[in-house]
Amino acid sequence: MECCLASLLRAPSLSIVLPGKSSRRSSSLHLRQLVGFHPSRCQKMFVPGFGEASPEAKAAANLHHFFTFVAIKIVLSQLQSYNREAYEELMEFVSRNSLNDGDQFCRRLMRESPRHKGTISWKISTIQVRSAYSKRDFEWDNLQMLAHKMVDESNTRLMRDYVKETSHIEDN
Amino acid sequence: MECCLASLLRAPSLSIVLPGKSSRRSSSLHLRQLVGFHPSRCQKMFVPGFGEASPEAKAAANLHHFFTFVAIKIVLSQLQSYNREAYEELMEFVSRNSLNDGDQFCRRLMRESPRHKGTISWKISTIQVRSAYSKRDFEWDNLQMLAHKMVDESNTRLMRDYVKETSHIEDN
Repeated sequence: MECCLASLLRAPSLSIVLPGKSSRRSSSLHLRQLVGFHPSRCQKMFVPGFGEASPEAKAAANLHHFFTFVAIKIVLSQLQSYNREAYEELMEFVSRNSLNDGDQFCRRLMRESPRHKGTISWKISTIQVRSAYSKRDFEWDNLQMLAHKMVDESNTRLMRDYVKETSHIEDN
Repeated sequence: MECCLASLLRAPSLSIVLPGKSSRRSSSLHLRQLVGFHPSRCQKMFVPGFGEASPEAKAAANLHHFFTFVAIKIVLSQLQSYNREAYEELMEFVSRNSLNDGDQFCRRLMRESPRHKGTISWKISTIQVRSAYSKRDFEWDNLQMLAHKMVDESNTRLMRDYVKETSHIEDN
């Protein structure tokens, strides 16, 4: 991943023209000024507000919850074909418990009727499917490509709409 | 990314023992049976419920909103040092508008007082920072590594707790 100072200096000039109190004092803030110093790697934009964690850790935690959601979808789909009783049990459990926090959901799922050993196997498999899906099936390269595409398309749309709207105001 | 049939066959056996109506009819569902056919790539686990989209597209959309959140953090941090007036204006805007939907937030931000051309430049820079951050600074490899680590640690913890709890019940 290219993130060195050399690449920053080659980056297109993204300027923020900051309005001062008078128009004469307006200052221009370039992308180079938006970077903060990251001693172990290279110069990067400083992202405040993540404490001791990082944006990557925050995003990974969200993906972790998402993988639990996907694992439940996979297991439900299979149980629906193979075991209606277990399918209905899991559906009923999902209706009572939020999937927003994947770990909390799994913890509750594992604790639900722990004496019934016959039904614990598909609960254990849910967390195994979560691991297998995230490591083998999930397309990480595709995720990156789609995210870049979304940012590009969204930014183009926003700029086009902005130009349209301001042109309309000027015409009036 | 390894995801071929050969790797599936080498995968450790993740079995779901499904309880039938009688204990004699209990069936065993292995990971190989959890895979669905994906014509263009290889055999993968079938994930229902995403319509025409994919889990990767859903995850990319969430990351897209997250990048807007990060871009706002970066711009706010810089404005706080360079331009208090613009910083307070953006803080006030953030307090009135949710960042859950990054595109909607940016659309509203761009439309806010479009006649004041002096202040639009840092609004445009917000979407440019979003693009620059996601393409250059965000550590995609680190995201993948952290997500795998989270799944492993969480699964180990869940299994350990389950074994502890069930052992306790048996002791009683």
